[in-house]
Amino acid sequence: MGRLKRYHPPGTSPGTLPETGIKGQVELITYGSQGVRRAQGLTVAQALSLPRERAWLRVKGLDTEIVAELGRQLNVHPLVLEDILNPGQRPKMELHPHFLFLVVDVPLLSGSTLQEVQVSLLLFRDLVVSVEEREHAFFVGVEKRLGLGFGRLFQYGSDYLAYALVDAAVDHFFPVVESLGEQLEELEEILLAQQDQVLPQLHTLRRHLLRLRRSLWPLRDAVGNLLRQEAELVGDGVRVFFRDVHDHTLYLLDLVENYRDMAGSLVELSLSMVAQRTNEVMKVLTVIGTIFLPLTFIVGVYGMNFEHMPELAWPWAYPALWGIMVLLGLGMLRAFRRRGWL
Amino acid sequence: MGRLKRYHPPGTSPGTLPETGIKGQVELITYGSQGVRRAQGLTVAQALSLPRERAWLRVKGLDTEIVAELGRQLNVHPLVLEDILNPGQRPKMELHPHFLFLVVDVPLLSGSTLQEVQVSLLLFRDLVVSVEEREHAFFVGVEKRLGLGFGRLFQYGSDYLAYALVDAAVDHFFPVVESLGEQLEELEEILLAQQDQVLPQLHTLRRHLLRLRRSLWPLRDAVGNLLRQEAELVGDGVRVFFRDVHDHTLYLLDLVENYRDMAGSLVELSLSMVAQRTNEVMKVLTVIGTIFLPLTFIVGVYGMNFEHMPELAWPWAYPALWGIMVLLGLGMLRAFRRRGWL
Amino acid sequence: MGRLKRYHPPGTSPGTLPETGIKGQVELITYGSQGVRRAQGLTVAQALSLPRERAWLRVKGLDTEIVAELGRQLNVHPLVLEDILNPGQRPKMELHPHFLFLVVDVPLLSGSTLQEVQVSLLLFRDLVVSVEEREHAFFVGVEKRLGLGFGRLFQYGSDYLAYALVDAAVDHFFPVVESLGEQLEELEEILLAQQDQVLPQLHTLRRHLLRLRRSLWPLRDAVGNLLRQEAELVGDGVRVFFRDVHDHTLYLLDLVENYRDMAGSLVELSLSMVAQRTNEVMKVLTVIGTIFLPLTFIVGVYGMNFEHMPELAWPWAYPALWGIMVLLGLGMLRAFRRRGWL
Amino acid sequence: MGRLKRYHPPGTSPGTLPETGIKGQVELITYGSQGVRRAQGLTVAQALSLPRERAWLRVKGLDTEIVAELGRQLNVHPLVLEDILNPGQRPKMELHPHFLFLVVDVPLLSGSTLQEVQVSLLLFRDLVVSVEEREHAFFVGVEKRLGLGFGRLFQYGSDYLAYALVDAAVDHFFPVVESLGEQLEELEEILLAQQDQVLPQLHTLRRHLLRLRRSLWPLRDAVGNLLRQEAELVGDGVRVFFRDVHDHTLYLLDLVENYRDMAGSLVELSLSMVAQRTNEVMKVLTVIGTIFLPLTFIVGVYGMNFEHMPELAWPWAYPALWGIMVLLGLGMLRAFRRRGWL
Amino acid sequence: MGRLKRYHPPGTSPGTLPETGIKGQVELITYGSQGVRRAQGLTVAQALSLPRERAWLRVKGLDTEIVAELGRQLNVHPLVLEDILNPGQRPKMELHPHFLFLVVDVPLLSGSTLQEVQVSLLLFRDLVVSVEEREHAFFVGVEKRLGLGFGRLFQYGSDYLAYALVDAAVDHFFPVVESLGEQLEELEEILLAQQDQVLPQLHTLRRHLLRLRRSLWPLRDAVGNLLRQEAELVGDGVRVFFRDVHDHTLYLLDLVENYRDMAGSLVELSLSMVAQRTNEVMKVLTVIGTIFLPLTFIVGVYGMNFEHMPELAWPWAYPALWGIMVLLGLGMLRAFRRRGWL
Repeated sequence: MGRLKRYHPPGTSPGTLPETGIKGQVELITYGSQGVRRAQGLTVAQALSLPRERAWLRVKGLDTEIVAELGRQLNVHPLVLEDILNPGQRPKMELHPHFLFLVVDVPLLSGSTLQEVQVSLLLFRDLVVSVEEREHAFFVGVEKRLGLGFGRLFQYGSDYLAYALVDAAVDHFFPVVESLGEQLEELEEILLAQQDQVLPQLHTLRRHLLRLRRSLWPLRDAVGNLLRQEAELVGDGVRVFFRDVHDHTLYLLDLVENYRDMAGSLVELSLSMVAQRTNEVMKVLTVIGTIFLPLTFIVGVYGMNFEHMPELAWPWAYPALWGIMVLLGLGMLRAFRRRGWL
Repeated sequence: MGRLKRYHPPGTSPGTLPETGIKGQVELITYGSQGVRRAQGLTVAQALSLPRERAWLRVKGLDTEIVAELGRQLNVHPLVLEDILNPGQRPKMELHPHFLFLVVDVPLLSGSTLQEVQVSLLLFRDLVVSVEEREHAFFVGVEKRLGLGFGRLFQYGSDYLAYALVDAAVDHFFPVVESLGEQLEELEEILLAQQDQVLPQLHTLRRHLLRLRRSLWPLRDAVGNLLRQEAELVGDGVRVFFRDVHDHTLYLLDLVENYRDMAGSLVELSLSMVAQRTNEVMKVLTVIGTIFLPLTFIVGVYGMNFEHMPELAWPWAYPALWGIMVLLGLGMLRAFRRRGWL
Repeated sequence: MGRLKRYHPPGTSPGTLPETGIKGQVELITYGSQGVRRAQGLTVAQALSLPRERAWLRVKGLDTEIVAELGRQLNVHPLVLEDILNPGQRPKMELHPHFLFLVVDVPLLSGSTLQEVQVSLLLFRDLVVSVEEREHAFFVGVEKRLGLGFGRLFQYGSDYLAYALVDAAVDHFFPVVESLGEQLEELEEILLAQQDQVLPQLHTLRRHLLRLRRSLWPLRDAVGNLLRQEAELVGDGVRVFFRDVHDHTLYLLDLVENYRDMAGSLVELSLSMVAQRTNEVMKVLTVIGTIFLPLTFIVGVYGMNFEHMPELAWPWAYPALWGIMVLLGLGMLRAFRRRGWL
Repeated sequence: MGRLKRYHPPGTSPGTLPETGIKGQVELITYGSQGVRRAQGLTVAQALSLPRERAWLRVKGLDTEIVAELGRQLNVHPLVLEDILNPGQRPKMELHPHFLFLVVDVPLLSGSTLQEVQVSLLLFRDLVVSVEEREHAFFVGVEKRLGLGFGRLFQYGSDYLAYALVDAAVDHFFPVVESLGEQLEELEEILLAQQDQVLPQLHTLRRHLLRLRRSLWPLRDAVGNLLRQEAELVGDGVRVFFRDVHDHTLYLLDLVENYRDMAGSLVELSLSMVAQRTNEVMKVLTVIGTIFLPLTFIVGVYGMNFEHMPELAWPWAYPALWGIMVLLGLGMLRAFRRRGWL
Repeated sequence: MGRLKRYHPPGTSPGTLPETGIKGQVELITYGSQGVRRAQGLTVAQALSLPRERAWLRVKGLDTEIVAELGRQLNVHPLVLEDILNPGQRPKMELHPHFLFLVVDVPLLSGSTLQEVQVSLLLFRDLVVSVEEREHAFFVGVEKRLGLGFGRLFQYGSDYLAYALVDAAVDHFFPVVESLGEQLEELEEILLAQQDQVLPQLHTLRRHLLRLRRSLWPLRDAVGNLLRQEAELVGDGVRVFFRDVHDHTLYLLDLVENYRDMAGSLVELSLSMVAQRTNEVMKVLTVIGTIFLPLTFIVGVYGMNFEHMPELAWPWAYPALWGIMVLLGLGMLRAFRRRGWL
């Protein structure tokens, strides 16, 4: 049923950071005209004291300590820190006086299990902080592009890095949606070939589609808000790129809604095919019953032991009866054929 | 079918306070730089005459007397008083010239019974009045935090106390929604294991989801209005916290809608599984009938007592007939297997 | 299918007043600082010539004469008069230069018949005109309050009287909606106890809910428009009261939509219970058929009259056959039990 | 499936007038303080050269020649002319610099065939041009009122004539919708009386409702736009009348949506009644089968020809067996009665 | 399941042009007061260096080289180029500082396969660039009109050419939608004649309708945006023509939604007809079973071999039994007839 946002007991003071008990890692990537430098295994304070032109501070794992330290060093509102540490948030975009807060869901489909991993982004003037719910190769592509030492990441400010991360997160939806589309096509083929019941699988598919939609709708709104609002932190040049991300979310939503409609149509098709098959099964039974029940009655009649049954003694009675029964059977077959049951 | 707002007979003057016949209790908690003081068993007039920096006036139980007295002392519009005394209101937010009126529903799920308890809040410059439909430990957490004597409740004005109460009320939705989500998962498992009919339970679940939605939609709107409107009583610092509550209601609504879609999908799955089972039952009957009705007819034929039935005298007729019948039976079994009915 | 607005033949001049052939009654209630006076059996002209501070002119019954006279005396647009005389209008609010026109539907539920009665209100500076489709005790409460000689009706202008009438009309929805809710609950109980088919009743209920919705949606919009627009005729003090009516319509619509969803869920539940019962009926037939058709075949075999059937002469053949048949029967019962059919 | 807009082959120059091959008629009705004059059988040029205060130019039949001439004489955009000549347009309202273009659908229901006839209106300062798809007595009422020589048509400008024509067109929806409502009621009665299958008829009804909706939605928007926009050609006095037409479309849409919901509910009712009947049919078969299959087996047993069947010789065996069989039958009947199957 | 937008591996730099490996063709058509000239087989650079008044640069086939060159020569944003090369985009309209970017889908229906072909348009001051996903005679009509050397294409600027291309693309929807409408009608006829199961075909039809809708919704929005926004590149004269395209998309969407509703209604009709047929099949079986099972039992009774069965010796027993059995059979037939089963 999806992941419920980890809530604290009713009445806890808001902004209280939950104790996740997870040990996280801090990594700082500074980049700019001086090239790219990577530093791992630092504390947040150490990382932020390093000289930098532009930097990406990565936190892997929801470590309460690290996030709290982030909050203190960068003056982040406790409610934002709480959201970062409670995975299962709705994707959202919040404009704060000196930074922009973005929550994005990254879907991971392995076999028939769909998981969402939360990535929180804080965009400052010269710094992007990303907090990833758990370690995963989401951002390998961005790291590589940073490693090149040139390109758009170096032309634009840290807003472009934020964009690149959001874009990479949204890119993860494509293979998932494609895979669900393929599953849908397979189920359709199985269904039309009448090979098997597909409803339990269709049900799982619909659940996955519902969850993707739940991730995508608010993401679309978040990026749309970012485009509309006067967020100074995002320059006009980078805004064009965010518009592209917005297009991607619209496109993905279109597909997801389309697949949902198609899955609904398949459910109806499936229901109707079962009904149709039951109808055919019943026809067979009815044809057999309608032919043989009367015949069995007839032969039962002449199996009676009455002493006075004149027919029994007639020499041509037995073949005549056969004739009658054959005619009766054929007549019924014809009647069924005329009704279209055979 | 949920709780219908207790309405007076058509034609009663609006703003007439209904006689609930309930005996309520008044409690005043004053807090501020001088510490926290608690006073119970006072009248409203006594409570409001006590010196205070900031205060929380709690009324437990819908006592007509007390609410009427509140209205007189604090100059509250009769329609507001009427709303307070008629539980089952839509959650709402009303801006009045000198105060803010908020109605919130708190859901309580015990077993398979879902109840809503109405909490009305009046936010004045230095006072929050809460009227609780019946006594319950909704606000234990807030009381504890007040008891500490420091914290955000003491930094901000009474608007933060109002927020803390609304937040505590909304927090009560989480365990209820989570419990419904778990029920849904259980029903899904039972259904897929074909162990039992789950439709009556699904129906109850849907009713609960409908009722939660009915509480959450207007609550979302109420908090959203509060964020949008120029309510001076709520400062900018506290507004951030109300935005967090707004996020929570959105999140809860997302979940509730998701669960409703999933329950709908389960209903379809359930219907289709019954149809599938009926189909299988029919197949068994049809296979048995199609094999044994003709065979019974054949043995019936040779049970007839005609005097002239040459076959009866043939010595190999009986074993030959057995052979024919076995072949017929096997042939039909093969035909069914080819149709995929076995 | 509800009441179709009585339309004139296509091509009739708009604003032509339909000849209802109904004889109506005019009553004038003047009230103010001088007390309350009632005058019945007057013509419209006489009534309007009486001195008044504030007045309520009631027309009971859609009398073409009276309405036409009203139009002449009060300078009312012919289209408004036409709307008044054609019951079955959508509830609406129209702002005219010197008056406000309101159409409200009052539902009356007697047994399983739901009727709507149209009440048209014209609010002038010092006069409220109400035209009631037929006589009914809708406004008894308002009359009583007027009779008291004091209260809010005397503090505010005629806008408050208009509000009181609208409020009384909306109050009539509550018992109707409550009654439908109770019917829904009863149907649910009957259905879950499998006592009876409830679909025809559910269908009637849904029709009623649809009709209530059809009355309530435009009413909500009408009152909402009145709140938003700059209708000078409605003062700020009275506007608060109209906001309360608006809340009531929202509340009623919530309930009606909720009941519609619940009725939909009940229809699905009902369909699935019939399917489930059919499934159980089929299981019984299949179990019986599967056990007895083969057994009947077997006994049929030994009822054949072949001369050469060695088994017939074996002394232990009969008890042995019984043994075989009992084992076969028990084996099948076990197989069914394992499949969960018993 | 409704009427598809007659489209030209992809790639044709837009604004190319299709060759309808239809011969139309031109009629000019001039009216004003000088009285009413009618002229038939003119060319467009002749008609427009006649002196006039206000005039109504009627074109009956989609004659390419006439429409093209209209365009030249009155300086009408080719796209408008194309729309006039391609019946099956969406109803719409277009504001052009010197005229207003309105397309309206008039429904005609004869038996179970629903047809829409397109009427295009061009409103100029002192002229209304109407082009009717085919001759029909749509506007008899307006003609009659014109014939009177006085009335509102003579008080207001040509905008009132345009209104009168739109109003007459909308008036034609009422009998159609009413007739569909009556059909719906009839189908409901037939269904509840279980007299017949009504689904094919319900399907046709739904198709008709869909088509009416397709005509009414855009019409509502068109008139709504006309009310909102600053169309100078429509004076304030006439605007009130257009508001009335707007009300009528809202009312008709309400009804159509209502009927659609009701038809949907009837479909469900119908499906469930078939299921219920199948259930009852199955019960009868099951009761009969469950009683007689075992009994037939029993009598089969004693029809066997084993030499050693001691029971056969017992003198009281036959009546005893009858007793057993009667008890068995009665026991089963009781069991069925307890299950509620009888 | 439609065509998924060809996505690059997550993490690729945005704006990276995919290597399609397709070889495309460039064609330049210059036109204006000097007449029309056509040049094929040029490079983009050559084409753009040719003198021109107005020109249409056609690229047929998604050739990465050519598109990249286009981008360099015309200073087009890399994201636009990426969109051009990734077919399966949502139709859209993007306003860029010096050009307008339009993506349109052209549907092609051959047999039961529906394909969309993407056409991208770039509108510059004096140039329209079209990139067609693959070669097809989409724009034959426009070419012909250009070939004439006069007409509106020569009166207006390149904005009219862009319009003409969009219009031609939208025109391709008409035959597709019409064909689907005809299929729907055929399926309806087949269904009502009970000739065959139509659900698999209906399912395919619904998929096609879903895909058309997916192409049309964003197209409608794109053209609507173009109308609303202050795109200087589109003059007022041409804007009227785009309004006509907008009307066409609305019209097509109306039809598609209508067909979807109708297809849904047909699915319900189909399901109910299967249920109805099953019901009829069951009735036949039940009638036959109910008549012959008891009769077979009776004749079985007198086939028993008890020594003491007095009836067997009665001379009139046999004809009497026949009498009883005939009466029983007729009685049951009558009972069925009264229940309406025959």
